[in-house]
Amino acid sequence: MSQKSYVTGSAYPPLENGVLRIYSMRFCPYAQRTRLVLQQKNIPHENVNVHLKKKPEWFLERNPFGSVPTLEINDKVIYESNICSQYLDDVYPGDKLTPSDPYQKARDQMLIDTFGKAAGLFYKILRTGEDIGELKKCLERYDKELSKRGKYFGGNNKPCMIDLALWPWFERLEQLEEKGFKLTEAEFPNLFVWVKTMYQLPAVKTIMFDNASHMHFIKSNREGNPDYDFGL
Amino acid sequence: MSQKSYVTGSAYPPLENGVLRIYSMRFCPYAQRTRLVLQQKNIPHENVNVHLKKKPEWFLERNPFGSVPTLEINDKVIYESNICSQYLDDVYPGDKLTPSDPYQKARDQMLIDTFGKAAGLFYKILRTGEDIGELKKCLERYDKELSKRGKYFGGNNKPCMIDLALWPWFERLEQLEEKGFKLTEAEFPNLFVWVKTMYQLPAVKTIMFDNASHMHFIKSNREGNPDYDFGL
Repeated sequence: MSQKSYVTGSAYPPLENGVLRIYSMRFCPYAQRTRLVLQQKNIPHENVNVHLKKKPEWFLERNPFGSVPTLEINDKVIYESNICSQYLDDVYPGDKLTPSDPYQKARDQMLIDTFGKAAGLFYKILRTGEDIGELKKCLERYDKELSKRGKYFGGNNKPCMIDLALWPWFERLEQLEEKGFKLTEAEFPNLFVWVKTMYQLPAVKTIMFDNASHMHFIKSNREGNPDYDFGL
Repeated sequence: MSQKSYVTGSAYPPLENGVLRIYSMRFCPYAQRTRLVLQQKNIPHENVNVHLKKKPEWFLERNPFGSVPTLEINDKVIYESNICSQYLDDVYPGDKLTPSDPYQKARDQMLIDTFGKAAGLFYKILRTGEDIGELKKCLERYDKELSKRGKYFGGNNKPCMIDLALWPWFERLEQLEEKGFKLTEAEFPNLFVWVKTMYQLPAVKTIMFDNASHMHFIKSNREGNPDYDFGL
């Protein structure tokens, strides 16, 4: 189902007219955001994995930043995870993931954009073993927000864009245990329920990796030789 | 017209029901983005300047990140420049600044978001005197894009969101001359026309500072004592 990563020097895999393609790296949390949107909205698409240390020339021609996710359909190319996800939500039918109310939309976007700080701290802790205090402070805001919203950030009934945009880092939270850190249910009661609920979501189940696989990838990446094709 | 910056310990200036307020710092390029949107759409509003080194407690209560721009109206608070600008465009009548076509919207958002790199390089050059080569490479992309679009990024007739989102850094480009760098018309023919056109825009004229004022502010900021209230 998933192909080994395309590398520098490889030939461009021809794209059929009208077919939506996502360029991805299987362990990238940003690519995962948009892959979750594809799943949640049941959008037919083709997945193409690229090697981020040996990027194919044809990939860099399409996205000079060489970042994943990147979408391609006909002569259109889109990159940056939130922009890709928004484009899919704007154009494809199915569950509307973005709130139609402008203030709700703005609030959700604020929660997504400022999550960048938590994501940065997460990797810093994994790298340096730095204390988890600041990350906890960030996450408190999301726990509090959930207490007002329900099971999902999108309310009690279904996940919305913000659920899918934040999820990838929560799937990786167990990695902190390697550094001796554990977030507890007592501290984050709402996030704990949310994490359990999200793990039941078909879109999440389809794409997720277990902790051992994530750990393997993180370790290989830290050693300078990221195992993009692990398990293929 | 413009009031001196509110500081720690100051009293919260009461906000009338239904009045839109923007918290700003007069020399902040991010706040300028949203102030340009307010001008361009002729949105009635109240401007409140805050001291970014001595932030009022009531400001941090409203926006824990303490960043400008921040919008407040009734019980709503919005921050992050692009989110503020988008909210105003969604809610207020007047010129629609965001393209309605989802692909065009995505492309513009990509150009806005990835401009962060150019903005970062700009300040790095001012700080370190580092070579201008990488910044030029960034800007080439915008010059090329303009060649396909017309006088503005929004086409030949009027500016759109991306014009207003990028402008603040172009108003400050002359500052590079202090470090011995100058962008030439031969290198950036389309950006040069755009800059001239943008300077004629009433919204830009209303808000802009001349180079001497920008230089004074940058210098005071570099010395650790930013003169937020310069000229008031």
